[in-house]
Amino acid sequence: MLLLIPGPVQTRPETRAAMAQDIAPWDLDFRAVYAAIRERVRAIAGGREGEHATLPLQGCGHFIMEAAIRTFVPPGGKLLIPQNGAYADRAVRLAGEAGRQVVALPGPDTRPVTAEEIAAALAADPAISHVAMIHNETGSGIVNDPAVIGPAVRAAGRRLILDSVSAFGALPFSLADHPEVDVVVFTSGKCLEGLPGIGFAVARIDRVEASAGNAGSWSFDLSDVYQHALKAGWGSFRFTPAVQALAAFNVALDLYEQEGGQPARHARYRENARVFHEGVQALGLTPYLEWRHQGPVIVTVHQPADPNFALQPFVDALKRRGVLISNFWNTKVPTFRVGCIGAVTPEDMRGALAAMGEALEELGVRRRAPA
Amino acid sequence: MLLLIPGPVQTRPETRAAMAQDIAPWDLDFRAVYAAIRERVRAIAGGREGEHATLPLQGCGHFIMEAAIRTFVPPGGKLLIPQNGAYADRAVRLAGEAGRQVVALPGPDTRPVTAEEIAAALAADPAISHVAMIHNETGSGIVNDPAVIGPAVRAAGRRLILDSVSAFGALPFSLADHPEVDVVVFTSGKCLEGLPGIGFAVARIDRVEASAGNAGSWSFDLSDVYQHALKAGWGSFRFTPAVQALAAFNVALDLYEQEGGQPARHARYRENARVFHEGVQALGLTPYLEWRHQGPVIVTVHQPADPNFALQPFVDALKRRGVLISNFWNTKVPTFRVGCIGAVTPEDMRGALAAMGEALEELGVRRRAPA
Ligand SMILES: Cc1ncc(COP(=O)(O)O)c(C=O)c1O
Ligand SMILES: Cc1ncc(COP(=O)(O)O)c(C=O)c1O
Repeated sequence: MLLLIPGPVQTRPETRAAMAQDIAPWDLDFRAVYAAIRERVRAIAGGREGEHATLPLQGCGHFIMEAAIRTFVPPGGKLLIPQNGAYADRAVRLAGEAGRQVVALPGPDTRPVTAEEIAAALAADPAISHVAMIHNETGSGIVNDPAVIGPAVRAAGRRLILDSVSAFGALPFSLADHPEVDVVVFTSGKCLEGLPGIGFAVARIDRVEASAGNAGSWSFDLSDVYQHALKAGWGSFRFTPAVQALAAFNVALDLYEQEGGQPARHARYRENARVFHEGVQALGLTPYLEWRHQGPVIVTVHQPADPNFALQPFVDALKRRGVLISNFWNTKVPTFRVGCIGAVTPEDMRGALAAMGEALEELGVRRRAPA
Repeated sequence: MLLLIPGPVQTRPETRAAMAQDIAPWDLDFRAVYAAIRERVRAIAGGREGEHATLPLQGCGHFIMEAAIRTFVPPGGKLLIPQNGAYADRAVRLAGEAGRQVVALPGPDTRPVTAEEIAAALAADPAISHVAMIHNETGSGIVNDPAVIGPAVRAAGRRLILDSVSAFGALPFSLADHPEVDVVVFTSGKCLEGLPGIGFAVARIDRVEASAGNAGSWSFDLSDVYQHALKAGWGSFRFTPAVQALAAFNVALDLYEQEGGQPARHARYRENARVFHEGVQALGLTPYLEWRHQGPVIVTVHQPADPNFALQPFVDALKRRGVLISNFWNTKVPTFRVGCIGAVTPEDMRGALAAMGEALEELGVRRRAPA
């Protein structure tokens, strides 16, 4: 089965093989693995030794994002969230339920937020301390680029929290170029092609230290993750991790390096997306995004208007052909979504397109004439 | 390597083999697995259909415990925590940082809390709505028995939150006998012998529904876990789970049933503990607990006073002999701790005792004459 979903992604056999072992997390042999993972992750984030720290947290992307918001935005504090997609909606809810004041900056999920929009919103409200932005909006496939937005945040003297859950390791980004970023967060099961179970924050140490006491949750206090590591040694965990996912992640990082790191991974995903974006049009379907706004992570496609089309039967027909796509969508109009990330090649995308053509035939779905 | 730690435990090969696969959590085939897990867990908890629900949560034991406290105790509300061990200390911290008022009932970690102590503390403070109790105190090995404490909580008209992280599935307990229990929590990697990554709450549905709006955290709101499942269907997840740990957990539940469920598992662990508690005395060492207070999950042993003894070298010497024990301790005086849970037999405990005798010889540790 070929998984074409934006996480948990298709992994390489070597990576998932590392899941099938019992491991004691605090064992000295494993501590070395854990220490290596943290350093490797910091390097991928462009973090500097002594200036940035990798702070792993048990669980999922929502958890590491809630932890980042709680840690860096004080209780009752105010943050701006460009709300241009489903994961931005989720960040709004996470921050609001955590008792932070959210200023939402609504925008269509078909194009990135602009620096001008951010600058205007920040100028209008001096009480906003932070911007929390989704890097790759997994709901539609657009990219909010920190290289564009970061300078606007910096110029306004505010701080940036970057949800890079579905972008980290593939889209270009370096903390070294972004002093305005307090923290970038991501998870083990996306573009670094590990398996799910662990969230990561890479954060500025000075800001982590200054944020002690903000979180209102021991579990989600990244400043405590940092202090615990200092006191107990970096190989020590506060709480039991999904340790097999860490072991597999270390293998995934080996494969990432072997492939050529971020530029190579970005190039492969981009080509996956290009082949697919072009290919669905050849099938007579309409991509949700214009190519110039299309990121490399996920391609969203309008569901055909033909009443013969329904998502679950389409997903089932594809599954019978060895291709698994999501059976839900995250846009306001009906779409289907296809992940271009994971251990997946342009050749796989071509295979998936062929399967889609057959599946549409099988369902008797009429489409417009190919573009 | 034989893991003798109180979680993540040694698993059976069939269980961990299920970790090495890519899975889409919302896929219809996996939804069936997930639905089955929830029903099986409810049955093990003695929960009744329509009255109790299994609420899984990404992450670890601390997370599910914080979620239980936040969900059932309103912000600013008051809870009593019998503080007789390291995990009770942790519950105190979790509740306090979450903004709940904690009334701690301190006690030695060498015996269980009594019904009289609980009754007196509840009588003294009518503002206390809940008792949060550690079922098996993994710090020392004592058991706070809900069959003893539950009636005192019930008689006082209060509610019980049970941290059964290191007890669930092995120690006898049934929600059907405990209407005062709002929720019992545990994790995938302890007595049910799965791998770590998922927490579970089994909760009273009426209380979950009545607790909407309490949590102050979307991630940790068990009432939202419940509402989401009602709306989106029980096979659906709010957030990405450590899905491999769920697949493995389902295999672990098969093996649990094959073994004979709770009575059989309890008997095996109890025999493990008996063999070990007796055996360390024969080696000239002193268990931390008297046998009458010794639970079946973890045996804690005083470190020998001989200056030749140090924990890490002892752990290393055991590891060279194929036995892995914890390299830290959770009591106020120096001890070492040996887990009796997981896919481990009395024969394994005898092997571990032989290895310990050799390791102590190797380190040149003098002990008192065997009892
Ligand atoms: C951009 C983004 N943020 C947050 C999340 C939440 O991650 P999780 O499902 O692991 O909680 C996702 C998941 O796909 C995501 O794509
Ligand atoms: C009784 C008890 N409660 C809570 C926990 C916390 O679990 P975790 O380490 O998964 O966060 C543990 C872990 O051993 C435990 O034994």
